[in-house]
Amino acid sequence: KINADRLWDSLMEMAKIGPGVAGGNNRQTLTDEDGEGRRLFQKWCEEAGLEMGVDEMGTMFATRAGTDPDALPVYVGSHLDTQPTGGKYDGVLGVLGGLEVIRSMNDLGIKTKHPVVVTNWTNEEGTRFAPAMLASGVFAGVHERDWAYDRTDAEGKRFGDELERIGWKGDEPVGQRKMKAFFELHIEQGPILEDEFVDIGVVTHGQGLWWLQVTLTGKESHTGSTPMPKRRNAGLGMARVTELVHEVAMDYQPNAVGAIGHVEVYPNSRNVIPGKTVFTVDIRSPDEKTLNRMRAKIEAGIETICDALDIKFEIEPVGHFAPVTFDEGCVKAIRDAAERLGYSHRDIVSGAGHDACWINRVAPTAMVMCPCVDGLSHNEAEEITKEWAQGGADVLFHAVVETAEI
Amino acid sequence: KINADRLWDSLMEMAKIGPGVAGGNNRQTLTDEDGEGRRLFQKWCEEAGLEMGVDEMGTMFATRAGTDPDALPVYVGSHLDTQPTGGKYDGVLGVLGGLEVIRSMNDLGIKTKHPVVVTNWTNEEGTRFAPAMLASGVFAGVHERDWAYDRTDAEGKRFGDELERIGWKGDEPVGQRKMKAFFELHIEQGPILEDEFVDIGVVTHGQGLWWLQVTLTGKESHTGSTPMPKRRNAGLGMARVTELVHEVAMDYQPNAVGAIGHVEVYPNSRNVIPGKTVFTVDIRSPDEKTLNRMRAKIEAGIETICDALDIKFEIEPVGHFAPVTFDEGCVKAIRDAAERLGYSHRDIVSGAGHDACWINRVAPTAMVMCPCVDGLSHNEAEEITKEWAQGGADVLFHAVVETAEI
Ligand SMILES: NC(=O)NCCC(=O)O
Ligand SMILES: NC(=O)NCCC(=O)O
Repeated sequence: KINADRLWDSLMEMAKIGPGVAGGNNRQTLTDEDGEGRRLFQKWCEEAGLEMGVDEMGTMFATRAGTDPDALPVYVGSHLDTQPTGGKYDGVLGVLGGLEVIRSMNDLGIKTKHPVVVTNWTNEEGTRFAPAMLASGVFAGVHERDWAYDRTDAEGKRFGDELERIGWKGDEPVGQRKMKAFFELHIEQGPILEDEFVDIGVVTHGQGLWWLQVTLTGKESHTGSTPMPKRRNAGLGMARVTELVHEVAMDYQPNAVGAIGHVEVYPNSRNVIPGKTVFTVDIRSPDEKTLNRMRAKIEAGIETICDALDIKFEIEPVGHFAPVTFDEGCVKAIRDAAERLGYSHRDIVSGAGHDACWINRVAPTAMVMCPCVDGLSHNEAEEITKEWAQGGADVLFHAVVETAEI
Repeated sequence: KINADRLWDSLMEMAKIGPGVAGGNNRQTLTDEDGEGRRLFQKWCEEAGLEMGVDEMGTMFATRAGTDPDALPVYVGSHLDTQPTGGKYDGVLGVLGGLEVIRSMNDLGIKTKHPVVVTNWTNEEGTRFAPAMLASGVFAGVHERDWAYDRTDAEGKRFGDELERIGWKGDEPVGQRKMKAFFELHIEQGPILEDEFVDIGVVTHGQGLWWLQVTLTGKESHTGSTPMPKRRNAGLGMARVTELVHEVAMDYQPNAVGAIGHVEVYPNSRNVIPGKTVFTVDIRSPDEKTLNRMRAKIEAGIETICDALDIKFEIEPVGHFAPVTFDEGCVKAIRDAAERLGYSHRDIVSGAGHDACWINRVAPTAMVMCPCVDGLSHNEAEEITKEWAQGGADVLFHAVVETAEI
């Protein structure tokens, strides 16, 4: 078993960097705080005797050598970046849980044939720079590196420039590493495990996603003196699309979800009818056909809504991943580890996207989940117990060591 | 008749200060640009031989002396502040049209018994600091001066501090001036005059308004992993209120309008269900009963919407004026002037709020309107012709000189 107190201390230490306003964290990707979090992680890796490599996307790889110089490494990790009002565990548990696996191997003097590498993937959250899981996506060959560099944040700053600014643009070409396997520990971010009093989620699948950025263009005009029939209200259009997305998701639930989280209104003045709105539709389903049917319904619905309001629309996909089926062997390693350790477990579908979803395309991959209080995530109040962290990290530990072969 | 070329040149000169991004203006109240616009107006007033007074709300009063030292002055004016994406005429035409009246009196050597005062009211637009028509409201005794000082903008800056910062907090106590009459020239900001090929709107009434600031509180959570039935989506709540406001206004139109122009979403991240939204409902009607019935329906509807979504709400009125009936004598002076000058005219109800609506409570008041292209206002593309400006300013000139008595 791993050392839960040490893991917990590291989680709390990391949470001091980029504190939020309500007990959580704001350590968004490529901010100064992200840089500081990376330096702390690097220091811990050095103390654990690991060798650090950084690739051109800023992803960190900390290696514990194996006994066979030719054996492919086993990778483990997640991300240290957070939402603007994020929690202390989303991503961080997977990185520091991976570090704890290695610290425990060091404690016990465990030697493995295959090296073990702890990874911190850059920009998993996708809030500052869409899409999410950007660096793991480039690693897996889904995106081009230079396309990733050109992503911009709300202030127009480029991903590539910000990566250089915080000093974490490495030299290593992206995606050249070959992996025996990749394991990611993550909090569930949903309520199933807690509701069913289950310790461990064995993640067999991941939902697919579309992010559709919609721009509606009507006409700015005076809220008081513009007659109702003369209005071309892009805010009303956005409201109707918000309702549409909700209804389409309700039609397919529990096999689908949908919402709009990000919104810009122009000129955003109390007495001006919005002339333009820009917002991102987030729809997800574990079933690819359902996901694409939802997208088609929403796109057709947007056209109908805009026709009725005499407004124009553009729809640009800014994020996408297909539903994922994780590697059978890696999933089994996790299920067996939970079984062996005596933790209650169940198979589960990940509701969120994860770096593991992309890495699954280039290496055998699986995930282990632990519960989180009230299923709450992407909220500063995100919480887990030390016992849940212990369970998840124990299972990760066993799956990794077994795969890396003593 | 006034000198339309000179009026037009001044309008274009003022429009150079705080240019917008699409040919209009962004000269919001108490910004550096507002300060610069005020200095230009002051210079022009000095050149016209006027004496400037500034009150504690920053309102500017430029006086042309009369022949009778005891006679109450006739006031004329509007506002120089604009929307964030505003036009070159909304407000500005009324101030510079007033200045042109005086310049024409100077040209013609007209002496009046009553002094004539051109006024620039502070913060008419209400975008940066709600409510609109703030300084004229304090002047009319509707608001307390210190309450006005405590209004804050989106960055939390206080009105009083910003007024001091730009150097336009005067010494004169607010509201002490007694007026023989107040006349305001303004663009219609609606389509009626242009559609009917009428030169002049004789404003007999003004619509009433409620601004209701609504705060909805749900729960931030993950868009991917939060099951649909577990969501407490404050963004969906806002969408439903937007539709409700539209429907209520449609039920009462053409005797009512309603929209939501200003919106804040927290945390405004693509993959976070909005935990909080703050937005302002703008409803208007020329009929007080209708206006209050709309408010009651919307407040009841918000409760129903929030109950269904398990979200909390707060409603705070942040702006209000009752429908206005302008002074019969002043209205007649305008109508007679239009008739005498041979301009086509019709009686009209103002769709927007104006400083004249507040001043009407403390002095005999009326307004004259000229058409604007496509009825468009609160848009950088706001446009008028020089002939329309001439018509409005000619009528203003005659009404003012007649009321000030040669
Ligand atoms: N795990 C997680 O929150 N990932 C962010 C990408 C997503 O929205 O699913
Ligand atoms: N005239 C004008 O646009 N005034 C602003 C106040 C309002 O919204 O009516």
